[in-house]
This record gives sequence, structure tokens and C-alpha cells, in this order.
Amino acid sequence: MLSILEIRRQVEAGVLTPREAVAKALVSSRARNPDLKAFAALADDDGAFPEAGPLAGVAVGVKDVVDTADFPTELGSPAIYGGWRPKADAAIVSRIKRLGGAVIGKTVTTPFAYLDPAETVNPRMPNRTPGGSSAGSAAAVAAGLIPLAVGTQTGGSVIRPASYCGVAAIKPSFRLLPTVGVKVTAWTLDTLGLFAGGVADLAYALQAISGRSMEAPSDPGALRFGVTTMPHAGERSPDSEAALESAAKALAEGGAKVIRVDVPDAFGEADRLQPRIYEFELFASLEWEWSAHRAELPPRLAEALQSGEGVSPDAYDEARAAARRARLASKDLFSSVDILITLSAPGPAPGRETTGEARFNRLFTLLGVPCVNVPGLRASDGAPIGIQVVAPFARDTRALAAAQFLEQRIATLL
Amino acid sequence: MLSILEIRRQVEAGVLTPREAVAKALVSSRARNPDLKAFAALADDDGAFPEAGPLAGVAVGVKDVVDTADFPTELGSPAIYGGWRPKADAAIVSRIKRLGGAVIGKTVTTPFAYLDPAETVNPRMPNRTPGGSSAGSAAAVAAGLIPLAVGTQTGGSVIRPASYCGVAAIKPSFRLLPTVGVKVTAWTLDTLGLFAGGVADLAYALQAISGRSMEAPSDPGALRFGVTTMPHAGERSPDSEAALESAAKALAEGGAKVIRVDVPDAFGEADRLQPRIYEFELFASLEWEWSAHRAELPPRLAEALQSGEGVSPDAYDEARAAARRARLASKDLFSSVDILITLSAPGPAPGRETTGEARFNRLFTLLGVPCVNVPGLRASDGAPIGIQVVAPFARDTRALAAAQFLEQRIATLL
Repeated sequence: MLSILEIRRQVEAGVLTPREAVAKALVSSRARNPDLKAFAALADDDGAFPEAGPLAGVAVGVKDVVDTADFPTELGSPAIYGGWRPKADAAIVSRIKRLGGAVIGKTVTTPFAYLDPAETVNPRMPNRTPGGSSAGSAAAVAAGLIPLAVGTQTGGSVIRPASYCGVAAIKPSFRLLPTVGVKVTAWTLDTLGLFAGGVADLAYALQAISGRSMEAPSDPGALRFGVTTMPHAGERSPDSEAALESAAKALAEGGAKVIRVDVPDAFGEADRLQPRIYEFELFASLEWEWSAHRAELPPRLAEALQSGEGVSPDAYDEARAAARRARLASKDLFSSVDILITLSAPGPAPGRETTGEARFNRLFTLLGVPCVNVPGLRASDGAPIGIQVVAPFARDTRALAAAQFLEQRIATLL
Repeated sequence: MLSILEIRRQVEAGVLTPREAVAKALVSSRARNPDLKAFAALADDDGAFPEAGPLAGVAVGVKDVVDTADFPTELGSPAIYGGWRPKADAAIVSRIKRLGGAVIGKTVTTPFAYLDPAETVNPRMPNRTPGGSSAGSAAAVAAGLIPLAVGTQTGGSVIRPASYCGVAAIKPSFRLLPTVGVKVTAWTLDTLGLFAGGVADLAYALQAISGRSMEAPSDPGALRFGVTTMPHAGERSPDSEAALESAAKALAEGGAKVIRVDVPDAFGEADRLQPRIYEFELFASLEWEWSAHRAELPPRLAEALQSGEGVSPDAYDEARAAARRARLASKDLFSSVDILITLSAPGPAPGRETTGEARFNRLFTLLGVPCVNVPGLRASDGAPIGIQVVAPFARDTRALAAAQFLEQRIATLL
């Protein structure tokens, strides 16, 4: 699969038409999907896609919790939403189409974007989980079927599957991409994200879709990188610790200022209370499903809903106050460093009975700060290990510039 | 129509069954609706409503921008959404049902909750607008058909129609009532609200639906009331100015501390920029309708969308920064008073060619603070004039207590 930037170069040079580029993605997606199970729905024909615009020629997969007028939207729950057809496209789908992008299909999500595994295969490690909940988006890009996919992250559902599948991804600042028409599971957490083969593609796509400049600063190596293992997030695999060390070393060797930092205590407290916020909002968000279709909900989701029903408004408010304290503390932290570098996940992808853990992600989702997964490093057995780049709120451009610099530095190690 | 509190008293005393109470509301709603046009859809039978819970016996109308699995949801736009049937109930609908409330129908909204008038009649002044956009919710309660209705406010769509129709209403703090399943028109502004015959009913219903205590403090008369005509909001009718003076006098005569206050300059600036935020988010929210159904959109909405398409992210960010400054300024203001008292609208209901103006509401929606419309006062021609009670963010209980005190004081004038 060509990168987004290469597709655009060839289209602008007149050596590739948007229709050809999209048709190629559709053919390979159709061929591989029976094994990979990355798409919940795929377009039948390739005649109706746009021919012009900054995303013309770019085939896009959209997570199946995002409303589409042209495809079913089953939320990973055929039992409840089988064949469900929304009336309207979600805001991000309309936007991508207007920019010339070709939405060729819906990518597999875990049920209601929660922790019960989907059947998608990790193209890099077929016996491991692709991660969740944006399993299909990560896998479709990792398999080279499409150059761009849309996912959502409420805990760690963009950065974690990107790490496990070895692709680049960004969870932008909260609300940078409007979630209108995306199934709500937690309204203060749900965030749209993008997957692509590399960081430059992410920057190009995010600039087009958000309408905001994502131009990199002239010297991203001049940024101060704060490295942390996030002790409050719990254990890391030895391979992952080594990967983070390699990344830090590569940055320093590239001339960047690399500082070991401790994260503030308020981070640990907010991280500990994040599930309370998620479960309270999850219960309110899925109260209809809980009332009308309880028996058809998968076990981990049902357990979380049961737990959420028991969270009192006072307990929820207390957790939200802890989140506000952590947001203030992050401002202090980001006065001494420009970027945080940590792991994207506690280790490489675990087995298929799980979707892995969001321990390195959920705090940053709660803070609303931009996070980028930079792929390239691997465990001793070849499993991808992602490095997570985190910037202050609304500094998505800085996050992408730092991630691109890190990506280049990691390339020198390979 | 009995009040919610009276229905509950009679149900608990065993002199009224929930089924009887709901059947009565349904019969009168069916009888009056051909003239009043307050309901876009009404239940066919009354057999399936809940029989137990804190809202049992309470017939509820829900604005037709709120998803319902049992009724069509047409968003005031039969041209685009005619017969549209969502899969799931919105969060607030599921919650009301679980509390025993009987959702007997969908109330008329202006198209997409914007400014183009709906055909609903103002029961108090048939030649005037009922206000918008929650026209049917205000009218159905004002006509005594139902004791409780759900509306939404993005600019002034709860408080304004309540003022014009002479009913009580609350626009709670932003996010107190989850908007999951409510059509998004502006994600930082859209707020669910409630309409009822009086303030005590609002407090009872909001406590049940939010799960939060709304117990009034023992002496609401001890609150400091700051009175303002909100000069930045522009002209007021003489009748309305006189009504505000009467309200202030009644409060003072009741022993409350009444202070004339100037609102901070930051309020004027944020108010001036509010349309920029609304239109930017409106365009992103309705991009599908704009792309796929432009010719079927009504004129004022189409004009706002055209304007919204032209708002740059930088201009939007600038307006959001002004909103943040106004939120900070409101904290200062609320250190010297506990409650703000102002008008709910610039005057009594104008003619039917408009839905009136949100000049006295949109700033408070932008700030996210709780607002209550207290009815009772009238213009010289008998048209209702509402007084608006505003409290700091998350002080919904205080807003309701102050409103109830004002309601009692106004009753002494009548």
C-alpha cells in the first residue's frame, strides 16, 4: 500500500487516478478480509467515490461505532444492532467525503468499543490480539489494505491497537475532531483518532480533516523530551522497557534534550479513578441497551455496566475533581518539558483472549491531551512495541512533530 | 392538569393509579393536539406504561430532537427525517422510563432546533409565537396536557418558550443531564432542560432524573440576589422592565437581600461571539444534511450553516477563549451575589413569524450555568413575562431554591 503522501503525489503528478488508488485498496481489502476480519462491511462497487480534494485517492476505513448512511453500523453487536442503518453520516464521515476521501468500509470494533475481544486478526502476530477496541482500523492499516483508518479511544482504544499492530496513530486533543454521530460510551472521554502507516500521513490527514495547520516546527529536535515509565500505570514487560530506553537514546543521539521525569502524584490519583468516570458515563450512555437487551451484552461490558449503575453522582464528581487536579498538574509538568515519551502499552500484544490493557493510555484520554503512537521497535520475538508521544492540550502539531522526529530516530536503529 | 407533586401524592395515597393519571393526559393531549400542534407524535394506547417508580403516573412529552425507539424522531424536518425511527432511546428517555415516567409523545421542535418557526400554537396567546425551539414542550405544559416535558437549549430554546408560554422551566448546568441520543447541533452548547407547571415540580423531576439531591436550603430568602437588565443583551420592552422591577421589589419585601449589579465586560464580549461558536459547531454537526439535503433546509438554518462554513478554526478558538474569560468573570460576579435575576426574554412573545430572541439566554448557555424561568408576571395585555434566575455552575439546587422563593413572592403580587 502506498502512503497517503505518495498517493497524493502520484495523483497530483497525473500518474495515478483517485479511482485507481481506491480500487486497488478495495480489491485487496476484499481479498484479505475473510482471513483478517478487519472490516465489518465493505463497499460493493468503486464507482461512486469522489475524484477531487485533498484526500482524493485515499481509501478510508471507519470504525463501526461511527454512523454511516451508506453502510450498516453494528457497533460490534450484531445481536442488538444487526443490519442497523443510520439515517445520516457522522460529522467525520461527511468531512472525509467532502475532502475527497473514499470511505470504502466499516472496520471491526469490539462490542460497544469495550473490552470484550473482536475476531479481528493481528496481521503482524496472528496468534496475538490486535488490541481493542479499534481492532479493525489498526489491522486494516497494518495489513496494508488501506492508508487511513478512523478509530475511537475512550480508554486506550486507538494507541493500544496501533502499538500491538505496529502502525502510527494519533488520539488528538479532546474535541479536535467532532464526535457527532459517533456512538457515545462516555461523553467526557470518547475521542476520535486516526491510523496510518507513518506519522507524516497522520499529520497530512489530521490537517485536512480538522482544517487546522499541522505544519511541523522547523527544528523538532530542539524540543525537551521528558521520558517516564509512568510508575502508577503498573508493570511493563522487559522488552518494552528496553524499547523505551532505545527510543530515549535515539532521541538524545539525534541531538534532542532528553530528561527523565517523574509524573505528578495527581496523575496516579486520576488514573485510579478513571474507571469510575468511564463506568458512570457508560451506564448512562447504554441505559437503553441495558434495559432492553441485557442478555445480549458480552460479559466484560455487562460487568462494567453493573458496576457503573452503582457509581453515585457524588463518587463521580469526586473522580472528576481528581481529573481536574491532574489537568492542572499536567500544566506544571509541561512547563519543564515540551513532550512526554512513554510506552503505548505495558508490553507487546498479549493473547487473543484479551484486547490488552489501557494502563498507559486512559489517563491521557482523561486529560484530553494529544497522544501519538510511533511504531518501529520490536520485542525479541518480533512483536511490535509502540512508543507513545504526549503533548499538552491543543498542541497536536507539537505532538506530531515530535513523533515524526522520533520516528526518524527509530529508523536509524533498525 | 395536576402537578407532578400532586399526582405523586395521590398515587402514594392510593386515590389515583399511574395508569389513570397517564390516560387522562393522553386523552386530553389527543383531543387538543389538532389545534395546538404541540405533539409531533402521540402514543396509540396507554397499556404499556410503567406502574411504579418516582415518576409513575407522570406523562412526559419529549422534544422531537431526542431519539426514541417507540416513536418517530423527525427533528422538525419531515422533509429529511419523515418517519425516521432511531434504534435506541436517548439516555434521558431510558432514564425517565426506568423511573416510572410515561413518555406519551414527542413534542414539536423547530427544524433542527434552530430559529425557523414551527406551527405550534401558544396556548396563552394564540396569535403570538410559543417561542422556540422547544415550542411543543412549552405549549403542551402551558395547555395543561402534561405535567412534565423535556426540551433542549443551545441558545435560548428552553427558557425563552417557557417565558412566552408562562410555564416554569430549567436549563440545568451543562452536562448535568446527559445528551446521549439527542441530535447534536452544537456540542459545547446543547443542553437538555425540563418544563413543568411550577418550580417545585422541576426540582422533583430533576432530582429523580439526575439522581442528585435538589433539596432546597432551609432559608432561600437569605440568598443575595443580584438584579441586572443585562445591558449588553440590548433593548427590553417597557412591560418586561417593569416586571423585573416588580420581581426585585417582591424579593426585597420578602426579606431577601437585593443588589443591583453590573455584569462584567467579559459577558458582553462572550455574548457577541457566541453565534460564531454556535455556527461553527452547527456546520460540523449538520454537514451531512448540508451535503445531502441542502434544498430541504429552512431559510434561517441554511443561512446559519452558510455562515458556519465560513468560520475558521482560529476564529472559533478566539470565541472559545472569550467564553473562558466570561466563565472566569462569572466566578468573580458570583462571589458578591449568590443568584442573578434578570429577564428570560427581551419582552413578551412576539408574532408568529419569529420564535423570538435568545439575547437573554445565549450567554448563560455558553457559560453552562443553571437557569430557571419563573412564570407568573404578565404584560399589560396579559402576555406572560418570565423572570430568569441564574446560579453558578453546578449550583442547580441553589437556582431551584431561589426560583421557588421568587415564585412564592410573585404569587403575593397577583
